Amino acid sequence: MEKKQISKAVINRLPRYYRYLGDLLEKDVVRISSKELSERMKVTASQIRQDLNNFGGFGQQGYGYNVEYLHTEIGKILGLDKRYSLIIIGAGNLGQALANYADFERRGFYVRSIFDINPRLVGLSIRGIEIKSIDEMEEYIKMNQVDIAALTLPKSKAPQIASDLARWGIKGIWNFAPTDLHLHENVIVENVHLAESLMKLSYKLSEKYKPADN
Amino acid sequence: MEKKQISKAVINRLPRYYRYLGDLLEKDVVRISSKELSERMKVTASQIRQDLNNFGGFGQQGYGYNVEYLHTEIGKILGLDKRYSLIIIGAGNLGQALANYADFERRGFYVRSIFDINPRLVGLSIRGIEIKSIDEMEEYIKMNQVDIAALTLPKSKAPQIASDLARWGIKGIWNFAPTDLHLHENVIVENVHLAESLMKLSYKLSEKYKPADN
Repeated sequence: MEKKQISKAVINRLPRYYRYLGDLLEKDVVRISSKELSERMKVTASQIRQDLNNFGGFGQQGYGYNVEYLHTEIGKILGLDKRYSLIIIGAGNLGQALANYADFERRGFYVRSIFDINPRLVGLSIRGIEIKSIDEMEEYIKMNQVDIAALTLPKSKAPQIASDLARWGIKGIWNFAPTDLHLHENVIVENVHLAESLMKLSYKLSEKYKPADN
Repeated sequence: MEKKQISKAVINRLPRYYRYLGDLLEKDVVRISSKELSERMKVTASQIRQDLNNFGGFGQQGYGYNVEYLHTEIGKILGLDKRYSLIIIGAGNLGQALANYADFERRGFYVRSIFDINPRLVGLSIRGIEIKSIDEMEEYIKMNQVDIAALTLPKSKAPQIASDLARWGIKGIWNFAPTDLHLHENVIVENVHLAESLMKLSYKLSEKYKPADN
């Protein structure tokens, strides 16, 4: 299928469609109408039809959507039919949480190695993946295909390491450090800023409630 | 200051302003023009002026913004002048990562307790915070002021626990379980769906590059 440029809002919704369809698949649901899907996802049925029309529809009048087919096709659009080699930089709790999340592999993301600066962590293994010294990282990246680096390290270290990674040819950075990375446009950065997410929650809470001034 | 209804897009940008201003404060920067702030944040200066005008401006012609004042005022808008009591449900790596993140406290979020179903974890402490059995959670919530519950548990368990939490009066849920929670509108849910973030990265990578089919 040919890919065309689609809006950021649609792209943001696709992973959610993929997750819902995956849940339906697990329950052996074979087909679903846009109305049913809309009720589950709390999105209007017309929004769903409109979103999926961006990719040529997939639905059939009077039948609805074939769940497995739609799941597979959205997976392809999301690039999940590929395998990605992932390294994690920073073997703290968050890095370990990512390394332990076997579900990523089901979607094609394989954690190949973990790097840390702390000599007490180097040599340990998480789910069979060895923690290596950050001094070995450059050589590792040059000798191995690495598609994505997850940065789970302090913000003071992240910009320099990210710029090294870009120089060594890493194309995708999944950034958990609470700082923005300004890299060449060839490097794709996806940020997960936990503190900012918590602030959004606090904004909404303080709009709606007055928390106790304890 | 009176709060008025502001757009979701502006709210999404506020935590980022707050973070940048905090970084400037740490560097003892006293004032900044919208032009300088714009260059740092890669947002247009007019966007910044427009966003901040939602809250009555804060800037002065020819002077720029007073960093500390602006930081404090945006903090108030975000509700960060309040203290929030937070519990973490699920003491796996991700729950431990959140419990270990002392930076949250600087912003007024205090982790009071951690709950888990695993008897081998119950009784252990993370940064002085004891892991309690999930069986004790109802009583704990009824006896203590708890504003926010962070859910770092499997998706199979999350909906039931979230609905219990809502019934017991929790107003804010920071949800890391890869599932949507459908709760009463009085409960504010902020989702961090890591797998979806990774899929967005993979979408952008596969748009721009063809990863090796290894």
